[in-house]
Amino acid sequence: MFFWSVLFGVFLACLPGISSHPPTTTTTLPPPTFPPRPSCSGGFRTCKELKDAMGIDEDGIYHLRSTNGYEYQAYCDMTTDGGGWTLVASIHENNIQGRCTVDDLWSSQQGRQQTNGDGNWNNRVIFGTVEGATSEDYKNPGYYDDQIVRNIAVWHVPNIVRVPDWKDRAYLRYHTTNDYFARNNLYKVFEDNRLERNVNDLSCQKGTAIPITYDKGDNAVAQSMYGSLVQAETEPGYVTLRPVNRNGVPFAICSGVKIKDSSSACSFQHYCVGGGGFQSGDLARMCGDFNNLDGKGEGQAPGWIASSTLTDSSLLILYR
Amino acid sequence: MFFWSVLFGVFLACLPGISSHPPTTTTTLPPPTFPPRPSCSGGFRTCKELKDAMGIDEDGIYHLRSTNGYEYQAYCDMTTDGGGWTLVASIHENNIQGRCTVDDLWSSQQGRQQTNGDGNWNNRVIFGTVEGATSEDYKNPGYYDDQIVRNIAVWHVPNIVRVPDWKDRAYLRYHTTNDYFARNNLYKVFEDNRLERNVNDLSCQKGTAIPITYDKGDNAVAQSMYGSLVQAETEPGYVTLRPVNRNGVPFAICSGVKIKDSSSACSFQHYCVGGGGFQSGDLARMCGDFNNLDGKGEGQAPGWIASSTLTDSSLLILYR
Amino acid sequence: MFFWSVLFGVFLACLPGISSHPPTTTTTLPPPTFPPRPSCSGGFRTCKELKDAMGIDEDGIYHLRSTNGYEYQAYCDMTTDGGGWTLVASIHENNIQGRCTVDDLWSSQQGRQQTNGDGNWNNRVIFGTVEGATSEDYKNPGYYDDQIVRNIAVWHVPNIVRVPDWKDRAYLRYHTTNDYFARNNLYKVFEDNRLERNVNDLSCQKGTAIPITYDKGDNAVAQSMYGSLVQAETEPGYVTLRPVNRNGVPFAICSGVKIKDSSSACSFQHYCVGGGGFQSGDLARMCGDFNNLDGKGEGQAPGWIASSTLTDSSLLILYR
Repeated sequence: MFFWSVLFGVFLACLPGISSHPPTTTTTLPPPTFPPRPSCSGGFRTCKELKDAMGIDEDGIYHLRSTNGYEYQAYCDMTTDGGGWTLVASIHENNIQGRCTVDDLWSSQQGRQQTNGDGNWNNRVIFGTVEGATSEDYKNPGYYDDQIVRNIAVWHVPNIVRVPDWKDRAYLRYHTTNDYFARNNLYKVFEDNRLERNVNDLSCQKGTAIPITYDKGDNAVAQSMYGSLVQAETEPGYVTLRPVNRNGVPFAICSGVKIKDSSSACSFQHYCVGGGGFQSGDLARMCGDFNNLDGKGEGQAPGWIASSTLTDSSLLILYR
Repeated sequence: MFFWSVLFGVFLACLPGISSHPPTTTTTLPPPTFPPRPSCSGGFRTCKELKDAMGIDEDGIYHLRSTNGYEYQAYCDMTTDGGGWTLVASIHENNIQGRCTVDDLWSSQQGRQQTNGDGNWNNRVIFGTVEGATSEDYKNPGYYDDQIVRNIAVWHVPNIVRVPDWKDRAYLRYHTTNDYFARNNLYKVFEDNRLERNVNDLSCQKGTAIPITYDKGDNAVAQSMYGSLVQAETEPGYVTLRPVNRNGVPFAICSGVKIKDSSSACSFQHYCVGGGGFQSGDLARMCGDFNNLDGKGEGQAPGWIASSTLTDSSLLILYR
Repeated sequence: MFFWSVLFGVFLACLPGISSHPPTTTTTLPPPTFPPRPSCSGGFRTCKELKDAMGIDEDGIYHLRSTNGYEYQAYCDMTTDGGGWTLVASIHENNIQGRCTVDDLWSSQQGRQQTNGDGNWNNRVIFGTVEGATSEDYKNPGYYDDQIVRNIAVWHVPNIVRVPDWKDRAYLRYHTTNDYFARNNLYKVFEDNRLERNVNDLSCQKGTAIPITYDKGDNAVAQSMYGSLVQAETEPGYVTLRPVNRNGVPFAICSGVKIKDSSSACSFQHYCVGGGGFQSGDLARMCGDFNNLDGKGEGQAPGWIASSTLTDSSLLILYR
């Protein structure tokens, strides 16, 4: 009995990679680049593969393996809307008064001298760990890997909350449903259109708005993350990618909202996170992972722009 | 024969997590947050659990697993005072002339602009690796995990020394014995009382002094780490947590000593390590992992404060 | 059938460490410091050991284990010149206009204030991951471990290229053949002669030139990485270690070339990478992983010094 439970443990833990990529969807992906190898991870590339093959329905931390064979540990949400969500990144502001200083990994750690930022939205650098995802910037190989992805989820979780409390403590959780990310995960979105200030960029582009379904919270909660200045420019129920402000500066993600068609302010630095860092001239003061969500440096009163609920939380990004 | 040795290897390496938390003490801990899962680590959370369950008595690097299921590698001292000590952190000064610059992870990497430091004494960010623990700051999940902890050990090891030489090359090794840390590891100590400058903090608090037993060295060695200025203010035979200096600035740990009841200098920045970083006004020059142990910037002659034995060493912190 | 394939997977993945160090060469190394332990890696210390013991001939990412027992994942080139090459490091310039700023890990992240740099050429700090090796600085335990090493290979791979494309996309790949590195890997070379500015160093030392054999490219390609200024001072067909410029500043590696005996310029900051960072006086402007390969700050026209082919690539370093 004990012997068999050991063997079963071995089976589950050290399944040969050769049986690890069941054809769970009809999407055609390129085969793994290197031949499958035995693996302590079971060789599953996503939480969805793991769930579909093994029937696992418990949230938690599991071993995954990238297409190139790099093993890592990731958090799997195995229950929301059928489960199979892989946490691939978190965006955390460690020092909103710092301007592109150390740990501004989703913008720039190089101060105000560089126009292209650290480039982490479109490279294969990883950082942080799953247990630290609400205490620091986090990115794992799932973010960039050639996996089957169709949609993303975003969770707003207060900083320093520990893994098992994320779901309960999140004040907003939502996901997209229109398969916008099929064959086009965030890495590829920003590889195709880098978050660099480009003189050819038309300024004041409102980006791509993707409708969302709420798993926790609703439009009122999404709107309440922002102050009156932002509420006047946006409408809730969307996640927006890569808008470009009036200075030609692109940002990565505006969570929970789209920019109103009627809005002409284009001051996305107040409510969109991530980007290339540098802003020219006076606007250099908004450099950082959370850009200018605090509104400092532009004469905005606290609360006009983002609530402290937002600035004291991390954005967790999941793929499925 | 070979077959069985393979199976035995598998058994030891990939023991299912389900059998991995034997009730080795009578302390009641919350059960693991997520259900146990098969694991290449065996699923042991501490070196003590590993020693008690498997009878291992060799010092070295082993796989452990946090309560949330995150696997990592840690150094286990399996021999000192019965063994079962887990290395969870090291404090290393990479550049004592830098003032809260890159790699001042136990104080602040944000320069002198921030009052609260990087917060790593009370969050779940990890950094460094076990083999680099005498070459850089190091912190693993054992530092913050909900594990059974009763006491800590501190080793002073010269920088860059490799793992198997740590014990021999350490000039001071000691541990506490009064179970001060039961249900209250360092993470929790500093979560309850963060290392932030607090206007409500009374200045000149002498912190919590915990008596120590020496595993290598003695009171004379502990005292000899410091110069005459510090020797006059302290007495050896203790480790002290979170004193607050005359400017209201808290520090993390003063190794080997307590502050004399009769002392009124309260210049703990000269011999205590770690903290929130920023000091106001002129004292900003003492920012960094080793604060002002070099005595520079306050007109102190070299040797009055800390010996180079201390400043060229790392403090390794172990739990049991 | 399935049962046995599972067992075989287990065997390969979780081979007990005790059988993992076959005497594949006649070089005598010290035995592992700690007793062998069961391991999910199989316990092989190098790609050569893995290849020799298991007959693996596929390039890819494999688990290795350091002499002290620390497990990690590394890229193995199992085919070039018989295979068995372990990738241990990459040198990547993230911001050539930054001067010893964040991520200048092979020189200094401390700005211009420090004379000795971060010390990573001769310590046990590791950073980066194998999949990010062309997007950031990378160093794994293989770099410093007490392994059997005889020669090194260097690959010049354009930045951000993914692992399976490295070989094809590299514009230059070569290796040494004279066993210069036997018992003397790069860690030991720079431990014996640190990359610190030393007042006792004679200036204008031309370093150690080791002849190379090309695996891709030839002398013409090696020379074409540099501009006319450098071509006049060097000849291709070598890799050079630790030259010292006219200011007494040592550099780590000059790739593809040796300094001509007849040359007296000794401006190695223009074509050698890595080092201790700081330069005195006006030369501080050349601080960084790629030192002054861009030629900025010394009035050099673009192209006179290094081509953008070189500055936009990473140097991958492999041991065998």
